[in-house]
Amino acid sequence: MSKAYVTEILSVGTELLLGHVTNTDARDIAEQLSKIGVDVRYQTVVGDNPQRLRDCVEIAKSRADIIITTGGLGPTCDDLTKQILAECFGLKLVKNEAEYAGLYDYFNVKKNFTPNNFLQAYLPEGCTVFHNNCGTAPGCAFEAQGKVVVMLPGPPKECNAMFRESAIPYLRRFSDGLIVSHTLNIFGLGESTVDQMFRDEMNAMRNPSMAPYAKECDCLLKVTAKAGTAEEAEDMLRPAIAEIRGKLGDIVYGMDVDCIEEAVMQLLRDRPLTFAAAESCTGGDIARRFTELPGASAFFLGGVVSYTNGVKAGVLGIDPALIEEKSAVSYEVAKAMAERVRQLTGADVGLGVTGLAGPDGDGVHEVGTVFISLSDGERTWVREAHMGAQRTRSYVRRMAGNYAFDMLRRYMTGLDVLG
Amino acid sequence: MSKAYVTEILSVGTELLLGHVTNTDARDIAEQLSKIGVDVRYQTVVGDNPQRLRDCVEIAKSRADIIITTGGLGPTCDDLTKQILAECFGLKLVKNEAEYAGLYDYFNVKKNFTPNNFLQAYLPEGCTVFHNNCGTAPGCAFEAQGKVVVMLPGPPKECNAMFRESAIPYLRRFSDGLIVSHTLNIFGLGESTVDQMFRDEMNAMRNPSMAPYAKECDCLLKVTAKAGTAEEAEDMLRPAIAEIRGKLGDIVYGMDVDCIEEAVMQLLRDRPLTFAAAESCTGGDIARRFTELPGASAFFLGGVVSYTNGVKAGVLGIDPALIEEKSAVSYEVAKAMAERVRQLTGADVGLGVTGLAGPDGDGVHEVGTVFISLSDGERTWVREAHMGAQRTRSYVRRMAGNYAFDMLRRYMTGLDVLG
Repeated sequence: MSKAYVTEILSVGTELLLGHVTNTDARDIAEQLSKIGVDVRYQTVVGDNPQRLRDCVEIAKSRADIIITTGGLGPTCDDLTKQILAECFGLKLVKNEAEYAGLYDYFNVKKNFTPNNFLQAYLPEGCTVFHNNCGTAPGCAFEAQGKVVVMLPGPPKECNAMFRESAIPYLRRFSDGLIVSHTLNIFGLGESTVDQMFRDEMNAMRNPSMAPYAKECDCLLKVTAKAGTAEEAEDMLRPAIAEIRGKLGDIVYGMDVDCIEEAVMQLLRDRPLTFAAAESCTGGDIARRFTELPGASAFFLGGVVSYTNGVKAGVLGIDPALIEEKSAVSYEVAKAMAERVRQLTGADVGLGVTGLAGPDGDGVHEVGTVFISLSDGERTWVREAHMGAQRTRSYVRRMAGNYAFDMLRRYMTGLDVLG
Repeated sequence: MSKAYVTEILSVGTELLLGHVTNTDARDIAEQLSKIGVDVRYQTVVGDNPQRLRDCVEIAKSRADIIITTGGLGPTCDDLTKQILAECFGLKLVKNEAEYAGLYDYFNVKKNFTPNNFLQAYLPEGCTVFHNNCGTAPGCAFEAQGKVVVMLPGPPKECNAMFRESAIPYLRRFSDGLIVSHTLNIFGLGESTVDQMFRDEMNAMRNPSMAPYAKECDCLLKVTAKAGTAEEAEDMLRPAIAEIRGKLGDIVYGMDVDCIEEAVMQLLRDRPLTFAAAESCTGGDIARRFTELPGASAFFLGGVVSYTNGVKAGVLGIDPALIEEKSAVSYEVAKAMAERVRQLTGADVGLGVTGLAGPDGDGVHEVGTVFISLSDGERTWVREAHMGAQRTRSYVRRMAGNYAFDMLRRYMTGLDVLG
């Protein structure tokens, strides 16, 4: 194993000091670096103040080999990270022609460029430029005075993308080993149940190791191995993951996917079908979530947001007498919604969701009651879910969408749709 | 005004360095302190390592008057914050009888005490003890060597509660006033243009001060005043905000709101109308965003997600020949979408959005081209927006929704709908 490089993350921004935003950049970077075996030992936050930033850079130089900055690369007068870092390492800022031309094109199209925007194209001499694919401010990396400096933009999307695309490949040579993780995505069991189920394994396993994680409406099981190479780590992970999957069965909806709609998209690519959604309490969130994924239009035809009974009747064509008799939040109306949206759009499968997301109730059902339906023209399945009145509006909406996508996944893979 | 006390937050915990948890404690503390006028100037994160913690304490002593630590107060062998801080300030740890008795009772009931738990009752001599109402580890504060030290537990619930209940009252005497901020929400100008527009004021203004902030698709201008009381601060802010609003005009859509749909909801409560949306490239996001707000059903009737041309024709009833002739991404189709969804749902106002969110194009329009429409039955307005082909899919979708909500705001307040 080579030298262990000590890393410091230096986040620059008065908004962090004032607590207006949380320092998620430092967390993301630290997490990614720990995966490639780079050891973050200090994190510092300082405001947009030249002298204090200079002092913090000097402290970082005295105790770290790698300094990663976030923030302060933009065009405004309080963006000074590049200037100060270059100064502390005795480097000049020079105009980068490619970035300058890119900014020129960008702001020319937008017709609202201001001269300060071009300051973003000035970078430390001799640096490796990291182009910003999510914003305008480029980042960069350089080696000087025996230290490695990496500068990333502050907005989390930009920081995250640039870190993965450019900084990780740049920093990989400073790593002394490698950590590989896979995440099993689970729908239908909570974190504490999974924790209980695998408690013995978790206590016994060291490498690979496993840990459950909970996101708002998702339960994940992360399995991690450390080895000299990625192949070795993968070889260690394979049997462990097979055993865990065997124990969990068909509630595992994917591996290393961000969300259940992404797992559905992967399935659809192999066995295409078209679907549509009639949404009441989810208010368009099922459509929105699926259409976040590029290529959605090959499978998702569209839908109706039938937020009020008038739209359920007038647009979806559901019999008002049925709504009157059974109420909008009912097995029967959910069933009709999936069937009608399927007919209306000509899709292979229709999904329907109606329920009470809260905070207000309807005097009949408990908040958190949701009916989710799937129709393929021959048969319609309806699931009744009770999420509990203590749940937030956004939880109920997200979870209702998860149920719908999970029913679609189960339908496509030949499992019992209602699980 | 008295001396301004410089504050450093020193967070102790290897789990922070590894990125397993986000440092929300530092954000919460900073936010609360800024409200009582205590100036956080540095935040540092260090692991559970005695020598590195000692070094960080020495750095904090050299640059701050108040040092607030989080984490490392528990009973395990890697909890060393109290020991190291006491050592750095030449203080002994002494047994606090009240805390000892409390721990004794607590662990006696739980029947799972281990001797190391009693280490939590040892605190720096002469300190003010902060009892922990959410956990077992007490916190504390002391003054020594001209510095103020406050130690808080790491778990966010415990840290937050103790900070509010005990640390804020203790620290109030070091505050030299109180900070009040208001945020102006702007649609239609970018951060750098706003920065340019107010550069002179920003350089000249000290108290109140102002600064632009950019969120992904939003531009904010934050105006902050520091004064002895909230009333004084508000009195200082009022004329400053009036002047800024005067200069910005009707592109200010709100003050202190989270998003443009929230501003629209506020307007709707005063002058109710109903609306519906026909969404193509936004894929249900307009419906989803508005229905995130409780009470949405009083104003939003529903909509159609016409993600494919078949749904535009079959559900919305747009003439397929028009789509064929003008293409789905066109002024004419956007116009028809707003008009048709209004008729179909019986809403007062219809909104329509069609465009190319990318990453794939249609061979005709540049990615990022979006047409946004509003129809009130008498007249239909259509706006053509070009967001630039380098924008992400999620940016184009969010921004298209912002345009639609902004048109609705302008319509409701009697402004030119197209701005």
